[in-house]
Amino acid sequence: MPINRQILLAARPKGWVTEENFKLVEQPVLAPGAGQFGVRNLWLSLDPYMRGRMDDAKSYAPQVEVGGLMVGATVGEVIASQHPGFNVGEFVSGAFGWQEYALSDGTGVRKVDPSRAPLSYYLGVLGMPGVTAWVGLLDIARPQAGETVVVSAASGAVGSVVGQLAKIAGCRAVGIAGGKAKCDYVVDELGFDACVDYKTAKFHDRLRAAVPKGIDVCFENVGGKVFDSALRLMNPFSRITLCGLVSQYNAAAPYGVKNMRSLLVNRIRLQGFIVSDRLEVWPRALDDLGRWLGERRLKYREAVAQGLENAPRAFIGMLRGENFGKQLVQLR
Amino acid sequence: MPINRQILLAARPKGWVTEENFKLVEQPVLAPGAGQFGVRNLWLSLDPYMRGRMDDAKSYAPQVEVGGLMVGATVGEVIASQHPGFNVGEFVSGAFGWQEYALSDGTGVRKVDPSRAPLSYYLGVLGMPGVTAWVGLLDIARPQAGETVVVSAASGAVGSVVGQLAKIAGCRAVGIAGGKAKCDYVVDELGFDACVDYKTAKFHDRLRAAVPKGIDVCFENVGGKVFDSALRLMNPFSRITLCGLVSQYNAAAPYGVKNMRSLLVNRIRLQGFIVSDRLEVWPRALDDLGRWLGERRLKYREAVAQGLENAPRAFIGMLRGENFGKQLVQLR
Repeated sequence: MPINRQILLAARPKGWVTEENFKLVEQPVLAPGAGQFGVRNLWLSLDPYMRGRMDDAKSYAPQVEVGGLMVGATVGEVIASQHPGFNVGEFVSGAFGWQEYALSDGTGVRKVDPSRAPLSYYLGVLGMPGVTAWVGLLDIARPQAGETVVVSAASGAVGSVVGQLAKIAGCRAVGIAGGKAKCDYVVDELGFDACVDYKTAKFHDRLRAAVPKGIDVCFENVGGKVFDSALRLMNPFSRITLCGLVSQYNAAAPYGVKNMRSLLVNRIRLQGFIVSDRLEVWPRALDDLGRWLGERRLKYREAVAQGLENAPRAFIGMLRGENFGKQLVQLR
Repeated sequence: MPINRQILLAARPKGWVTEENFKLVEQPVLAPGAGQFGVRNLWLSLDPYMRGRMDDAKSYAPQVEVGGLMVGATVGEVIASQHPGFNVGEFVSGAFGWQEYALSDGTGVRKVDPSRAPLSYYLGVLGMPGVTAWVGLLDIARPQAGETVVVSAASGAVGSVVGQLAKIAGCRAVGIAGGKAKCDYVVDELGFDACVDYKTAKFHDRLRAAVPKGIDVCFENVGGKVFDSALRLMNPFSRITLCGLVSQYNAAAPYGVKNMRSLLVNRIRLQGFIVSDRLEVWPRALDDLGRWLGERRLKYREAVAQGLENAPRAFIGMLRGENFGKQLVQLR
């Protein structure tokens, strides 16, 4: 009988996540009941939002219980089915968690097509991160041609798409990323107009030099000092899409944002958002993203860890910014 | 020949404004030229935004030059006219500055009717502060009946109107003010459901107790610690109208806002705004405000200093929260 390896939340983190916060367990693979189907997971997505689910704090989604399965999206293959809508051999994406096998009744499950794009892409540019970029930029911030768009975590799963969508919209796209290799990639491969390394001295001066006409749209993934710098450069009537605060998720004490005055004097509109609030626009977003990917107007990079047992380490690395591209775990 | 007393900006403040930042001078009263009229100012409005104009920092409006006339709105009487649209004996409101007499070509000048309301009201509930409350609450935050609205500086010119408009809209109105007298006034006279004194110990706990269903709309006039507390109590999909940051205008170092995470996880929409951006809604706002005032659904309180020479002291007191109601200077 095959074994289903799972990763559970062993203990809530205090500050930085460690590998001790996770526990790998083995369970028998269960057969689907009536109305269910069984999935063998092939790819696990690792995303910053998971850090929030490990905490006890009030958030937009239920926390993971201690001893519970870590939440996460996967792509897998249907290997057994008692569900009329899902057949063995089909590929699906769903919130199946950090495990090698899952059962589902189909709720929230999307069929994916391996002939259209590599299966892993449905966890990235053709999945939640891509739609996050599309909604946050095109539906919320609504940049106009000629405007300047700044995005932090620019080489990541969301940020890399944001900048490329900004270019498609006719904007100046400026990334913020950690280290020369990522910045070079963002400019040379992804086609951003500039990218500023937040780890260098004089970060603020460099960012200012990269936005000679100021910032019209800030797509914020990071928060903290980087966000405070961007605030000082925002233009009148500019927009901020607040999508993530990854610099804060493991901080013992939150960073205090000092440039709130910019929000007032520049009459900025800031919108916090979670892509799952906008399920109605997913089809339109995925349509655009798939088309632009097919036209090679969207480039995409992945960072792949091998094996479920390496998921915790890869997750921690991603929170530290050590990944380069969309972080995934290949499960087999 | 009559004398026009004026108050000029003598020097830019460093941190707190002092009376030494101002200088009183005397000028001859000038006769209007062709297309001009002359005004004798009766009431000068003192408002927090003036603090920003004294600084060198980039803002939404030009700064006052050192040696220049302090900006401000007044209500006055036309005493001489070579302008076909303005006749001697009419009353007007305009940006005539901190002085006893002014010349105007009519740009931005509004005629006001002393039979409809006391003239000073056109600088408050029937002027910029009232319209600020109307736009920021009803047009930007758009509270629904049954929601909870929190407003800081609740006994002030803007805040007092915000809370009363919230009550008219069927909301729970909770004020934040400094000291028991102001809080009692806000509840007992203005009809707010509760008011929390930010100067008391356990301010945050008291604010939380006053909003048992959380905060749906925060109309922010103050910023700093008070705003940080409110952020922790915001509901999902709540709105923040950022109208002022009076706690910060004289601060040597800006307060660092720590609860940015609430903006993200609660998908908050924050909008910074300046009422002069929305000139097109002034007529509608003034119509509502005038009607509700006539119906005694809006109550209103003024703090009046006597004589132009006392304007600097009254202005500094207002920034410290020492005023109680809309701060004015009666010029004669």
